[in-house]
Amino acid sequence: MRYYLGVDIGGTEIKLGIVNAEGEIEASSAIATEPEKGPEEAAERVWNWFEGQGPMTNEALSAGVACAGLIDRDKGKIITSPNLEGWEGTPLREIFTSRLSRPAVIENDATAAAYGEFRMGSGRGTLDFTCLTLGTGVGCGIVAGGKLQRGWQGHAGEIGHTIVMIDGPLCSCGSRGCLEALVGAGAIIDRAKRKLESSSGGDLEGIEPLTVKAIAAAASGGEGLAREVLEESGRYLGIGLCNIVHLLNPEVIAIGGGVAGAGDLILGPARKAVGEHVMHERLAGVRIIRAELGNEASLLGAALIASMESVKE
Amino acid sequence: MRYYLGVDIGGTEIKLGIVNAEGEIEASSAIATEPEKGPEEAAERVWNWFEGQGPMTNEALSAGVACAGLIDRDKGKIITSPNLEGWEGTPLREIFTSRLSRPAVIENDATAAAYGEFRMGSGRGTLDFTCLTLGTGVGCGIVAGGKLQRGWQGHAGEIGHTIVMIDGPLCSCGSRGCLEALVGAGAIIDRAKRKLESSSGGDLEGIEPLTVKAIAAAASGGEGLAREVLEESGRYLGIGLCNIVHLLNPEVIAIGGGVAGAGDLILGPARKAVGEHVMHERLAGVRIIRAELGNEASLLGAALIASMESVKE
Repeated sequence: MRYYLGVDIGGTEIKLGIVNAEGEIEASSAIATEPEKGPEEAAERVWNWFEGQGPMTNEALSAGVACAGLIDRDKGKIITSPNLEGWEGTPLREIFTSRLSRPAVIENDATAAAYGEFRMGSGRGTLDFTCLTLGTGVGCGIVAGGKLQRGWQGHAGEIGHTIVMIDGPLCSCGSRGCLEALVGAGAIIDRAKRKLESSSGGDLEGIEPLTVKAIAAAASGGEGLAREVLEESGRYLGIGLCNIVHLLNPEVIAIGGGVAGAGDLILGPARKAVGEHVMHERLAGVRIIRAELGNEASLLGAALIASMESVKE
Repeated sequence: MRYYLGVDIGGTEIKLGIVNAEGEIEASSAIATEPEKGPEEAAERVWNWFEGQGPMTNEALSAGVACAGLIDRDKGKIITSPNLEGWEGTPLREIFTSRLSRPAVIENDATAAAYGEFRMGSGRGTLDFTCLTLGTGVGCGIVAGGKLQRGWQGHAGEIGHTIVMIDGPLCSCGSRGCLEALVGAGAIIDRAKRKLESSSGGDLEGIEPLTVKAIAAAASGGEGLAREVLEESGRYLGIGLCNIVHLLNPEVIAIGGGVAGAGDLILGPARKAVGEHVMHERLAGVRIIRAELGNEASLLGAALIASMESVKE
């Protein structure tokens, strides 16, 4: 049996998995990232876990390493990453190739997640598929005509920084009216806070910390203010999806990431907005569904990308 | 020598050309569309011209037919077209296949233009290329990883109806804040009219009819109001391009169509807006240039698509 190693480096934890040639995860775990200790130390601890898995690791042909941010795949470096401060410019691919003793590829986490979902989850059976990861950041990965799309420099899929509201709210990137500034977790929480302030004590009052999960729980319980927050957020999300539909015309758009946990409370209004804003009813045929692989999508996708690139060599 | 027939059906004229296997146009012409007479009659007159070209037509293997609107490539029909009223639902591919006595394919005109530019014009040498057609309508065609992208139903590239200004100006499609409602020819002319009304007689006063060409001519002559109109339009265009950059990360974006005739008066501000709004300077490396093939891009692209599909068979 052939195996591939999958690594997904987040700001707080690194998810690890061993994936077989059928795309199934045979073993998985998570360890702390501790980014301040640097990538060499992290790679060392990653290897320690894989080494402990014995035979499967020994038979693994290659490794895929996913992380957030702009990745220079050619040079194997992180250009900029929101939650791996100090890792920019380090030769991440080289470090992992050396420490794991097999060829490693590095990949943007949303791109990896989309590929994982395409092969083993919500995108199976389609050729034109987009997968959004909706959390603090908003990213996506694009499969078109059955091929993963990366663009010229490898940065395709930065949907979070497409502008849907010119001169709208300020985004972390410095622009205004980016989709992330309207539907990222921070934007949803801010929306709830503003509604709380302008209402005479609402149903979200006193919830600490105020998270998207807490807002969704309140909305599930029928709380009006929480529902309003998710409806408004869903409408903005739907406009972002509508732009994907017009530009790429996918058959399926899957939504993953923490915010997707709000389920139909946010996807319902998003689907409604898509139906209202597409230029022709035919385009409303797109299926907007939840991603299926949860937080293992990126490590699985990274391992599958590594397996695909091994085949090429 | 192998030849292919190219046809580009516009609302007022049909452009015709014979394209050789190297992608060069060997002969071309234009005839009136007279859409009210229906597609069979148009196909008849199209054939009359091709027949008059003698040997090259005799050796032509297949034909490509481009027109504006949503095209159902599978069924070979126009679903909806802004300027071919009454042609919706007619079996256009069958009509042309029969009248031209060789296999015909039908294609959206902006998609065809993009493919023409990719193979023979502004997109040569790139693998990741987007070509916008900027006129009354705003469309685009996408080449990613060297492949023309059509999406699930064949409608990829409807950039004109991506929303960049939620609750912005009304678009012909019924939505608000679409890119077309901000940078289509009609939107630019309306912007000039509004500026004229609110100024105490401006430099555009008395120009009849007020067209984008006239506005560009006035701006070239240094007229302030006209410059303002194109700067503002260019800024909006740049935000639309910025969204393409974030989502698709192309190496080159080419701008064709009538509005592109304003050249750097509109592309300059567009490039500036892209530089200001991309999430990272690396993405500002995209080259934003004018399309090269003028109004023969769509007929050339349609013929080349026909040639490509002949190869497959």
